[in-house]
Amino acid sequence: MTEPDALTRAAVRRAFGRYETALVDNDIPVLDELFWDDARTIRFGATEELFGYDQIRAFRAARPSAGLDRSLDRVDITPLGPDHAVANATFRREGVAAVGRQSQVWVRFAGEWQVVSAHVSSRPI
Amino acid sequence: MTEPDALTRAAVRRAFGRYETALVDNDIPVLDELFWDDARTIRFGATEELFGYDQIRAFRAARPSAGLDRSLDRVDITPLGPDHAVANATFRREGVAAVGRQSQVWVRFAGEWQVVSAHVSSRPI
Repeated sequence: MTEPDALTRAAVRRAFGRYETALVDNDIPVLDELFWDDARTIRFGATEELFGYDQIRAFRAARPSAGLDRSLDRVDITPLGPDHAVANATFRREGVAAVGRQSQVWVRFAGEWQVVSAHVSSRPI
Repeated sequence: MTEPDALTRAAVRRAFGRYETALVDNDIPVLDELFWDDARTIRFGATEELFGYDQIRAFRAARPSAGLDRSLDRVDITPLGPDHAVANATFRREGVAAVGRQSQVWVRFAGEWQVVSAHVSSRPI
C-alpha cells in the first residue's frame, strides 16, 4: 500500500469508528454530521430504502434507540485515491442468527470524510 | 449537474447496463471483465460475502444460471468526481415478494469503468 493510501485508510478508519460508536449510542447529531447533506445521498437499510439526506435524517430521528448494539466482525477500508474510500464490514447482534453486512462509500469534502452511500443488510447463517 | 458529471453518469450508466444484461444472461466473461481484478474487491451477495476477485470469480463460475431474471425498478447513478461513481438500484423478481437492492462502487481505471465493491440484498415487502 502506498503512503497516501495508508493515510487515507487511517483517516477513514477513524471516521468509521466514530460512526460506529454513534450508531450504537444512537448519537443522532454525529450520525447526521457524518452523512453527506445532499439530495443524492442514499441509504439502503435493513427494512427501508432512503433517498436523500432529508429522508435519512427523518428515519434516524424516528428510530427507537433500543437494540442497536452490535459487534463488528471484519472491517475492510479500501482507499480509492486521496478523496474516496469504501468501507465494508460484517457484524453480529447478540442472540440473532444472522450475518450483518454494512457497506459505505466515503468521500472527503473540504477535508472532512462523509458517507455518500450506504447499504446495510443481514442474511441468515 | 456539471457537464463532466453528466458525461461520467452516462459512461457509468452504459457500464451498469452492460453488467445488468450480462447478469441476467449469466454472461460470465463480461461479469468478470466489469469487476476490478484485485484482492481488495469485495462483493456482499444475497447469501454470501466474497473477499477478493478470485472468490468472486469462483462464485460466478459455480452459480446455476436459472432464476437470474429480474426487473430494475429505480436506478441512481451518482458521479463522485471524474473517476468515481456509485450506482444504487432496486429490483424485483417475478413471484418474489421482496425488494431487491444493489449498490456498486465504480472506478475508472485506464479509461475503463469497473466495480470495486458491490452489495446485493433483499428485504420482504
